[in-house]
Amino acid sequence: MNKRPIIIDCDTGHDDAIALLLALGSPEVELKAVTTTAGNNVVDKTFHNTLKVLSHIGVTDIPVAKGAESFFFQPHKIADHVHGDSGLDGPELAEPSFGGVKLSAVELIEKTVRESAEKITLCPMGPLTNIATFVLSCPDLLPKIERISFMGGSAVGGNASPVAEFNTWQDPEAAQIVLKSGVPITMCSLDATFDAYITAEEKERFRQIGNKAGILTAELLDFFGKFHAKVGNKGAPMHDACAVAAVINPALFEMKRANVSMDLNGTFTRGCTTTDITGVTGRKQNCDVTFGVDREAFVELLYSAVKNLQ
Amino acid sequence: MNKRPIIIDCDTGHDDAIALLLALGSPEVELKAVTTTAGNNVVDKTFHNTLKVLSHIGVTDIPVAKGAESFFFQPHKIADHVHGDSGLDGPELAEPSFGGVKLSAVELIEKTVRESAEKITLCPMGPLTNIATFVLSCPDLLPKIERISFMGGSAVGGNASPVAEFNTWQDPEAAQIVLKSGVPITMCSLDATFDAYITAEEKERFRQIGNKAGILTAELLDFFGKFHAKVGNKGAPMHDACAVAAVINPALFEMKRANVSMDLNGTFTRGCTTTDITGVTGRKQNCDVTFGVDREAFVELLYSAVKNLQ
Amino acid sequence: MNKRPIIIDCDTGHDDAIALLLALGSPEVELKAVTTTAGNNVVDKTFHNTLKVLSHIGVTDIPVAKGAESFFFQPHKIADHVHGDSGLDGPELAEPSFGGVKLSAVELIEKTVRESAEKITLCPMGPLTNIATFVLSCPDLLPKIERISFMGGSAVGGNASPVAEFNTWQDPEAAQIVLKSGVPITMCSLDATFDAYITAEEKERFRQIGNKAGILTAELLDFFGKFHAKVGNKGAPMHDACAVAAVINPALFEMKRANVSMDLNGTFTRGCTTTDITGVTGRKQNCDVTFGVDREAFVELLYSAVKNLQ
Amino acid sequence: MNKRPIIIDCDTGHDDAIALLLALGSPEVELKAVTTTAGNNVVDKTFHNTLKVLSHIGVTDIPVAKGAESFFFQPHKIADHVHGDSGLDGPELAEPSFGGVKLSAVELIEKTVRESAEKITLCPMGPLTNIATFVLSCPDLLPKIERISFMGGSAVGGNASPVAEFNTWQDPEAAQIVLKSGVPITMCSLDATFDAYITAEEKERFRQIGNKAGILTAELLDFFGKFHAKVGNKGAPMHDACAVAAVINPALFEMKRANVSMDLNGTFTRGCTTTDITGVTGRKQNCDVTFGVDREAFVELLYSAVKNLQ
Repeated sequence: MNKRPIIIDCDTGHDDAIALLLALGSPEVELKAVTTTAGNNVVDKTFHNTLKVLSHIGVTDIPVAKGAESFFFQPHKIADHVHGDSGLDGPELAEPSFGGVKLSAVELIEKTVRESAEKITLCPMGPLTNIATFVLSCPDLLPKIERISFMGGSAVGGNASPVAEFNTWQDPEAAQIVLKSGVPITMCSLDATFDAYITAEEKERFRQIGNKAGILTAELLDFFGKFHAKVGNKGAPMHDACAVAAVINPALFEMKRANVSMDLNGTFTRGCTTTDITGVTGRKQNCDVTFGVDREAFVELLYSAVKNLQ
Repeated sequence: MNKRPIIIDCDTGHDDAIALLLALGSPEVELKAVTTTAGNNVVDKTFHNTLKVLSHIGVTDIPVAKGAESFFFQPHKIADHVHGDSGLDGPELAEPSFGGVKLSAVELIEKTVRESAEKITLCPMGPLTNIATFVLSCPDLLPKIERISFMGGSAVGGNASPVAEFNTWQDPEAAQIVLKSGVPITMCSLDATFDAYITAEEKERFRQIGNKAGILTAELLDFFGKFHAKVGNKGAPMHDACAVAAVINPALFEMKRANVSMDLNGTFTRGCTTTDITGVTGRKQNCDVTFGVDREAFVELLYSAVKNLQ
Repeated sequence: MNKRPIIIDCDTGHDDAIALLLALGSPEVELKAVTTTAGNNVVDKTFHNTLKVLSHIGVTDIPVAKGAESFFFQPHKIADHVHGDSGLDGPELAEPSFGGVKLSAVELIEKTVRESAEKITLCPMGPLTNIATFVLSCPDLLPKIERISFMGGSAVGGNASPVAEFNTWQDPEAAQIVLKSGVPITMCSLDATFDAYITAEEKERFRQIGNKAGILTAELLDFFGKFHAKVGNKGAPMHDACAVAAVINPALFEMKRANVSMDLNGTFTRGCTTTDITGVTGRKQNCDVTFGVDREAFVELLYSAVKNLQ
Repeated sequence: MNKRPIIIDCDTGHDDAIALLLALGSPEVELKAVTTTAGNNVVDKTFHNTLKVLSHIGVTDIPVAKGAESFFFQPHKIADHVHGDSGLDGPELAEPSFGGVKLSAVELIEKTVRESAEKITLCPMGPLTNIATFVLSCPDLLPKIERISFMGGSAVGGNASPVAEFNTWQDPEAAQIVLKSGVPITMCSLDATFDAYITAEEKERFRQIGNKAGILTAELLDFFGKFHAKVGNKGAPMHDACAVAAVINPALFEMKRANVSMDLNGTFTRGCTTTDITGVTGRKQNCDVTFGVDREAFVELLYSAVKNLQ
């Protein structure tokens, strides 16, 4: 089988960590590079957490780069109430056994895309700052991007505000630059990702795999699940893993074509991904938006991937 | 029983007409005055349609006033694709058998409230222009307003845009003035009103009542239902009647306390009633918002009211 | 000579007080009513100050009404650094010898205009809240408004922000409602009013008139001049008096026709009266804007008026 | 004398062309690279015009790169009413005798800065798109930027709108990214650049130099001056040359420290460089803003530079 080459841009983060495991354990994709951004926490922590997760499962040959420290205009609001002080509280992980590359995130994306014979798929799962900067600085490389499958946005509701999801709220200008880039886009929005949860019972199945990746997954869910139980969610939603899952198997999701336009100005709506699925606005469709997920199949996909790892 | 005195502010309109019937036929409320606004169509038409509906069922002793011709800032967009060229296409109604009062809408509201021994409930079901002007020009009378139960807004989704309901979209500044007035507010939002529909079968029950009001209701639904069938709705939603129903029997609705703040600025979100039910914004709750309706009980309430009329 | 009937809407204030003297002492205009608004200070103080000034010079037969306590959306920012804690620090004035009318400001404007055989000119010199509310609530009376000559706005620069004058900054929505009302408008903007100052020498001429009005003028200037000397202005600018002077003798000012549109949204520009005198925007001209003043003639006009009073 | 190394980013353009001559003929600066952007016209034309101007005066050893084709969000509005259809109408110039480099504008800036032993000064004179992209993609290189001396913005008034200068109007997001970059900034604003004009008499002095550069200057002014005469300007303002002149000799300009913040949202004010010189906003000063120019000394500086060329 021809593996689809992908780059993950993440702000690791519990669900980012699990998204990395999904990518690494899935035969359908090949993880060519990982770039990191400020988001759930400062970029020094998200970069470090990424290296720790990869080291823990023995993956030390993938280039990892540090990216954006701040955002186009929006001041940073750290989500340590969700991910803990380290940005990845819970599992005890050793210090990384390898360092990242000397390149910036944008430079690593640029190099990876330029050197690749095949088109590359980008899977951002934090604020879209690195990706937008790549779009701005390398317009000549955009034809080599197969698709951008990002976790973020929502057609209805939000989590950072009543109408905005955290990633698009944190850097709405970056999101808008990506949305109008002309690259095919999948928006793995809260409309589906909140339903891509793992229950407490399923978590134990991961633990019982017994390998490092399985135990890590369970321990990540031990911590992450506490926050979500507290706020009344049915399980721990694997938001970020959806960005990878939608590349591996788009059929897991109910997708609708839509125009998605960022609100940049609204006093109360900044960061809202206004999503037009009926055509009321007359604006051109630029996104495949996830409106539902086959949750059990999603969990099964993740289970298989984790099982494939150390 | 002590009838609750109400004023309806409407832009008649099919569902406005039915809301008038609901108010007139319900023993729980007493309709003290009707004011009209531009909205579904120009105010000359909505005023005229209101007089025609009332005349048709023999109600000619309620003062009716013409109000706002235009809106605070938003240019008018007429909804003739929904309500037809007259603003009330379908039933053939005779010319009105009475005229309105010489007062403006705001003056009629002011006079009615000032002269009333009891507090008055306002039931706006169009853009909130008249009501906001009343709020601005008569701050001394606000303590005599029991509640404003308005049809408009939405916590999720919209109909004038992906995130804005028509009434709040058409005059968002007016809506914001009402929302911050300090008066108790019920927002009968699309979240519930789309579910307050009447099916084709139920429509025939109204026709079979055999009185003028019942036949009028059925004929209004004949026309109004076509549009809604075309766009895939399950029946003809009685948006505007909810503003009255929520006064007669709030228990018909699932209500949540929320802060509702109008987006006034967003390029793509103007008119959005950002609705915070979780407290994420820290803003003070100012609304009871409808999130669901006991549809069958709602239809039964309307049926009884229509039956009580000529 | 046919006196031109005017209504002053003010937030007295040193320069408002002097504007009242100018109106009362000028044979060209007849002051029919005075309405007050929150602005330089809370409306209770500006109302009280207005009554005190009028009482001091023996004018107790003009109806004075209290108006807006707050603004369309903008929170109140009091200018007590300019006008002192009372809103009119400096002269020692006795308590008012008459009370205001029972009507609200909007009601008094409405009554005055409705009862007048002639068209009325409005001279607002505070935030335009009362005037905008009148525009909204009495559209039928607008043809009876000869002109609105308001102090506020600026083509270049500002005082409340780098680009916004205080009155338009304090209630930009009200200003926009007035600007688009269709009534002929003179905008007595900072571009001219900063040059309508009175020097220390000129102040003494007023004192030497020896009447109550002259001594009051000098004492108002004693206090008001201190602030302006501190911030480096050449004299005490009679901003508000310009709104009246431009009615008495428009030729005192260099006027340019322009489109003036309020910025309502800009993070840094809210309240800016964007003034297009070249036609670059293609928007319709709606204002005569003051771009210069014959300062000496202006002071002479005021001198004559003050001399005519008690 | 130690020459100060600069990079010019331009959208050539008549005054850009003259800015290039100023830089090339001035012993105080060394032009290390030229990058081009969309602005006065599409980037293909501004790039081509740049090569033609340099070729004409025999300068073929400076790397020239093509940059941004479009802007962060604002649609392109070409200024062909000022610069003609070619973007540089008037002089008949031969086709370029050299091509640009293969690098993008951002890559050329990055390479030049990275390879330089000294800090580099950037002189942008078009929309700030390339510079903002460099700021975003190479944060590590910002400490090697001595200063950004850009032509654009205005404290009062504008030319693209009543309150916005063309360059900042055309890409306000880019301007804001540059303004908040932390790099020392000189804003060569319309407040001074409109006064940096060349009269018809002075133009003839340039022609009489008799070298290619002098004749080119005169011919550029022949065309450019017609537009400015038509709109009533006293001469042909050398807006863009100010960005270089302020590097060569800042003392030519009256400078004030200010906070400059871009308005990004205002319906009527987008692109306005709100300039706070009094401190009324409390925001941190981030710019030296030009408020006046010693016009004769400026023309003399340019005259000397042109004389030094072929």
